[in-house]
Amino acid sequence: MGELNDSFVKLAKLKGEFVWHHHEAEDELFLVIKGSLLIKLRDRDIRVEQGEFVIIPRGVEHLPIAEEEVHVLLLEPKSTLNTGNITNERTVPHLDRI
Amino acid sequence: MGELNDSFVKLAKLKGEFVWHHHEAEDELFLVIKGSLLIKLRDRDIRVEQGEFVIIPRGVEHLPIAEEEVHVLLLEPKSTLNTGNITNERTVPHLDRI
Repeated sequence: MGELNDSFVKLAKLKGEFVWHHHEAEDELFLVIKGSLLIKLRDRDIRVEQGEFVIIPRGVEHLPIAEEEVHVLLLEPKSTLNTGNITNERTVPHLDRI
Repeated sequence: MGELNDSFVKLAKLKGEFVWHHHEAEDELFLVIKGSLLIKLRDRDIRVEQGEFVIIPRGVEHLPIAEEEVHVLLLEPKSTLNTGNITNERTVPHLDRI
């Protein structure tokens, strides 16, 4: 949706459980626009409600879970792949621009 | 309020007219948390309502105006000075952390 220095501003609709992953060299910001997002870390859970944001630092394994559909704004370096250190059918290598 | 790669996530309360300035090498994101922010550019005005954001690209002169108090979240490189290319009594060289 936008570019900011070395980062992209991304919009995503999430539903269901994503996949455990981390980003080797990139911090990632999730801002919840609509709904409620659960982010599991290895040692605790974070609940991010509408209007709240969380920063997942580089290297931290996380598992986003959207029990109901959640709309999020993401801020990530342009180099960030959604599935981080893993590649599977959920990986989105090419993004649409709106 | 947070760090994200080479940027800070900042919170600010704005009231009144700021000062015309630009940032030489840094894009800047304003997300309006509460209220309504007017940003004047040299060729047009942008009205940013609650829940909306705008990115001001590097080099673009802008003048934020908060007719009423506005709460904003800012995303800027750590190197960004609030008054950009100028220094005056509104310049905040050292930021509080919360």
